[in-house]
Amino acid sequence: MEVAIVGASGYGGTELYRLLKRHPEVTGIHLFAHSQGDQPLSAIFPHIGEDTWVGKFDAQTVSERAEWVFLATPSGVSAQLTPQLVAKRLKIIDLSGDLRLARPEDYETWYGKPPAPAALLEKAVYGLTELFRERVRTADLIANPGCYPTATLLGLAPLLKEGLVDPRSVIVDAKSGVSGAGRTANLTHSFSEVNENLSVYKVNRHQHIPEIERFAAQLAGETVQISFLTHLIPMTRGMMCTIYATPRRKVSEDEVREVYRTHYAHEPFVRLRPAGKYPATKEVAGSNYCDIGVTADGRTGRITVVSVIDNLVKGAAGQAVQNFNVRLGFPETLALEGSPLYP
Amino acid sequence: MEVAIVGASGYGGTELYRLLKRHPEVTGIHLFAHSQGDQPLSAIFPHIGEDTWVGKFDAQTVSERAEWVFLATPSGVSAQLTPQLVAKRLKIIDLSGDLRLARPEDYETWYGKPPAPAALLEKAVYGLTELFRERVRTADLIANPGCYPTATLLGLAPLLKEGLVDPRSVIVDAKSGVSGAGRTANLTHSFSEVNENLSVYKVNRHQHIPEIERFAAQLAGETVQISFLTHLIPMTRGMMCTIYATPRRKVSEDEVREVYRTHYAHEPFVRLRPAGKYPATKEVAGSNYCDIGVTADGRTGRITVVSVIDNLVKGAAGQAVQNFNVRLGFPETLALEGSPLYP
Amino acid sequence: MEVAIVGASGYGGTELYRLLKRHPEVTGIHLFAHSQGDQPLSAIFPHIGEDTWVGKFDAQTVSERAEWVFLATPSGVSAQLTPQLVAKRLKIIDLSGDLRLARPEDYETWYGKPPAPAALLEKAVYGLTELFRERVRTADLIANPGCYPTATLLGLAPLLKEGLVDPRSVIVDAKSGVSGAGRTANLTHSFSEVNENLSVYKVNRHQHIPEIERFAAQLAGETVQISFLTHLIPMTRGMMCTIYATPRRKVSEDEVREVYRTHYAHEPFVRLRPAGKYPATKEVAGSNYCDIGVTADGRTGRITVVSVIDNLVKGAAGQAVQNFNVRLGFPETLALEGSPLYP
Amino acid sequence: MEVAIVGASGYGGTELYRLLKRHPEVTGIHLFAHSQGDQPLSAIFPHIGEDTWVGKFDAQTVSERAEWVFLATPSGVSAQLTPQLVAKRLKIIDLSGDLRLARPEDYETWYGKPPAPAALLEKAVYGLTELFRERVRTADLIANPGCYPTATLLGLAPLLKEGLVDPRSVIVDAKSGVSGAGRTANLTHSFSEVNENLSVYKVNRHQHIPEIERFAAQLAGETVQISFLTHLIPMTRGMMCTIYATPRRKVSEDEVREVYRTHYAHEPFVRLRPAGKYPATKEVAGSNYCDIGVTADGRTGRITVVSVIDNLVKGAAGQAVQNFNVRLGFPETLALEGSPLYP
Repeated sequence: MEVAIVGASGYGGTELYRLLKRHPEVTGIHLFAHSQGDQPLSAIFPHIGEDTWVGKFDAQTVSERAEWVFLATPSGVSAQLTPQLVAKRLKIIDLSGDLRLARPEDYETWYGKPPAPAALLEKAVYGLTELFRERVRTADLIANPGCYPTATLLGLAPLLKEGLVDPRSVIVDAKSGVSGAGRTANLTHSFSEVNENLSVYKVNRHQHIPEIERFAAQLAGETVQISFLTHLIPMTRGMMCTIYATPRRKVSEDEVREVYRTHYAHEPFVRLRPAGKYPATKEVAGSNYCDIGVTADGRTGRITVVSVIDNLVKGAAGQAVQNFNVRLGFPETLALEGSPLYP
Repeated sequence: MEVAIVGASGYGGTELYRLLKRHPEVTGIHLFAHSQGDQPLSAIFPHIGEDTWVGKFDAQTVSERAEWVFLATPSGVSAQLTPQLVAKRLKIIDLSGDLRLARPEDYETWYGKPPAPAALLEKAVYGLTELFRERVRTADLIANPGCYPTATLLGLAPLLKEGLVDPRSVIVDAKSGVSGAGRTANLTHSFSEVNENLSVYKVNRHQHIPEIERFAAQLAGETVQISFLTHLIPMTRGMMCTIYATPRRKVSEDEVREVYRTHYAHEPFVRLRPAGKYPATKEVAGSNYCDIGVTADGRTGRITVVSVIDNLVKGAAGQAVQNFNVRLGFPETLALEGSPLYP
Repeated sequence: MEVAIVGASGYGGTELYRLLKRHPEVTGIHLFAHSQGDQPLSAIFPHIGEDTWVGKFDAQTVSERAEWVFLATPSGVSAQLTPQLVAKRLKIIDLSGDLRLARPEDYETWYGKPPAPAALLEKAVYGLTELFRERVRTADLIANPGCYPTATLLGLAPLLKEGLVDPRSVIVDAKSGVSGAGRTANLTHSFSEVNENLSVYKVNRHQHIPEIERFAAQLAGETVQISFLTHLIPMTRGMMCTIYATPRRKVSEDEVREVYRTHYAHEPFVRLRPAGKYPATKEVAGSNYCDIGVTADGRTGRITVVSVIDNLVKGAAGQAVQNFNVRLGFPETLALEGSPLYP
Repeated sequence: MEVAIVGASGYGGTELYRLLKRHPEVTGIHLFAHSQGDQPLSAIFPHIGEDTWVGKFDAQTVSERAEWVFLATPSGVSAQLTPQLVAKRLKIIDLSGDLRLARPEDYETWYGKPPAPAALLEKAVYGLTELFRERVRTADLIANPGCYPTATLLGLAPLLKEGLVDPRSVIVDAKSGVSGAGRTANLTHSFSEVNENLSVYKVNRHQHIPEIERFAAQLAGETVQISFLTHLIPMTRGMMCTIYATPRRKVSEDEVREVYRTHYAHEPFVRLRPAGKYPATKEVAGSNYCDIGVTADGRTGRITVVSVIDNLVKGAAGQAVQNFNVRLGFPETLALEGSPLYP
């Protein structure tokens, strides 16, 4: 199986390359970049130390070399490239936000850019693997989920599917490391501004809100409206969503925990912490795990879920490979094995 | 005015020393430590570079040298020292949690240690200066507030005093730098465990919960019950409380902002950000400011408040000096002037 | 005394503003920016929280408002602005590297930019206060030293002035926090690239090399040639120069230490650590101190000096204020008092 | 092949476990701890998420389960355990410093602890794989090198073996992340003390000095005496040695680089940067690479080498696995493949 990565000069692209290189079923990886193409990979990323060439993207060249394409391009770019690649009958896993919303007008509202064609939005299958695995098995156009939606929806899914919580009570206090902002020159993300600092951004207007609400509603079978606020944490990798929800009826912590245990009993990448324990982001660094801790507060009655992922792995490249494995019928954990890097 | 600092070997104590040294009305500062006394200050803190001696605490010696005592000792220790110092007719500002709760049994429940005598708890005045200034003016035993309660209550006060929000809807997602844990050898707070990591701790059982609820109720005139969850941020100084609350009636952002403007119009240490802007912790580093951003979400109707302080200044030593100034009739900003250190 | 700061939107400029605001002899501070002028300061730096206006630079306006000008502009810009300001009879302290070298051709070689006029280079007095204080007292054009030269020359001066070491044996392994790179959008200095990383830059070609060698030679009375290599440390503030030198003759550690004690006995901003102790950068954070540790290795005979400063204070704005005080006949420590911020 | 790891509760031990778990020739890994044994691994390291048991060390149990033992125990402990394990005919790779020096008295001088028996010191083979590979092939007792010696000796070896530099001119300015200090509660390594700080430690008395000088002399064929100074960098993983040496005769950069190219042409884990480029620590994070940049300064004539490793991989666990592979005749890169984790 020959694959292509478009967007190889970004953090998502290089993470895909790291994972796919150890994939035993992938025989060739062809690298392309949209803006910085035509140079050796080592000129961009000395840590890889290879003379592999990064070509300038064009759909024809990609189609001559690969069958599956991973789009690690920024939002707005995928919307432009996808139609060209679909026209060449390429199969696509898109890591951007461009294919995740149902309606073009929602995309315009939240992203402020021209949307992908409505026909592609309709065709795209949302690849939050644990929750929509069956749809992924046959998809040729996969919208890989955002990092925040992955951590949020895996944290919330058992509650929503069981109808345990009031769907208007959900508050997600979300925290991300800086690598989520991509590999760009930006004063806001310069070391001197971020280090020893904690800030909020995109208050009540993060573009992942409609994505979360869309798929939360599918899980709940009813409208879900969340408060969602994102914080920038002075660390490179890692994401935590702290989720607060009010139960519809009085539930014990044991009952809540049992629901989570049942839902995730057979999931290789979701790990539930024991009662009284909560995951930290470093405990999943470099891995495809989503670790979850859950409790019900005896005082307030509220349920609190702490969900952590590595934003570049389960929140991006790792889940893309997981979807690739599911779609191709490979073992789901292929190229995704191994412990997190700790400390 | 001669003052004493007990607990001079900790971060709170050294911050007090930094501030009091530039206080024009303080003519002498006498340093004591409970556990590490009888050594030059420079052996503990080379950054101060002085030969000032840190004496071993005893109440008699303190009473011979100072009129006011700042207790920067850990919880549990202040409860033991305060009766001795009160017996010597010393006036006290206690930075620990030992004098902040009304009932000894609550202290035992949340702190798991022997409480201070009930008579002292009754006598102590809670020194969240902006909210209880008039009581501070005549107090001889001041319970200096905790860092989380300071950021939370300053963030919530306008809403509670105006009765704008449902007092059972309040969720405080709290984040602190590591210096809040004090100057101790502890695997959990070692660099390799904290750096590039984000974790939660004391979920639903942080000892600041009853303190916040006690004084929130005084502001609201009714019982307030909060969800409160604390996160450890990989930074040294700084604290942010992200506060979510549901309004009792539909309110516009303008209306909410006007309430904050009115409440804090004349406060020298509370700075309200303009609409659409939110404070970051670094913007108050090294200063006594509490910076606040507030918004009302058009979608969910919820009010969100972002409140930041330097946990060692407004969250500890700075507010202690502020209370000292108020009590002694000095200008409230004395020794607390100056811009934050940025970047 | 009315002063102007040009370059108020940078880190050096804002640090100057922080210090000068607490200067009792400065009655007015007028802010200008070269590229980002004409906006309120709070739009650039919310931490200052003031409505002070930052004007667009022009020499005429500056001359109407101020007598002394602090140039906190980047290298290359000062060379352009200084002649205009000198023509208006303004007195200048320039924080850039533009006035520090003797010969225009050296500037072109090391900086790769057009030099300032030779006449101004000749007129400029090098303001490493402790070493050239007498020249500063009467200077109207002061070239404020670079951060690396300050830490290096203060670390080396006693050895060079006493002729204790071979002037061709000196190796300076220099390390700086990221704020030294200024407030700019730059992939190399983005958080994700710098955090958890240690790198070298400008190997053997840093523009501070000729500055160090020029003034080292003045101290030594002979040519000094150094190896100088700069490292980028994942921290915001702070600089350390680790200096290795071979003594001309066998010397004991006691003898070496005595030389340092004598040289710096009356310096308010140079602090020598006791034998066996060495300073850390955090021990000077936010202060104008240069802390020094020195030892002679019994095995190799080599002398090692560890010299630390806060690059934005003693390495830039603080030393500028120190020079201002010396020049104006104010107490040298005015506006520079106070302990470092620790931790 | 069944192996044991003693010291599984430390950072070196857990890194060994991470690597050996993906080793296709290792069929069983038995975990032991010296001080914290008899508990599930997940109680110590939640990131591994396994119920594997960590047993209390005793030599008999180890010998019943494994053929090869990796000792990831602290210095001083290995000296005690090794004789017991050797008596059970176990084969050993010791990651501590206890078997690296030739003479027991040197160990006592530099480590200040009782040495291992002289017979074991004599028997132990120093496993700096690239430099002593042939000896490793038949060794049953392997002294795995220290992190600093690995980075230093790989950086220096080509110069020493070719006799290019004066063996008394070598200065090693060494920098390490905090994980090198191990997983221990220690005020010096607490986050609030290390973060935003740069410090030196063990000036001229680091225990790796005699190890470096011993094997440098073997490479050079003559006595080598180095100046060696260690710095603590505010990062978790990563180590850089900046090496300065004076050539015996005038050499061009091209000549020097050619020597390095030749020496490391066939080494899978040593990567030489192109002229004018230097490695950063993050470019080897999580990998077994040692990346090297080298230059000769046209001005001073000095040669500068920048050598980086991940202190826990090539500086500890990775090199142990590399030695294991060499000794057992497996491909040398087994379980050590894969790109560094970036960013």
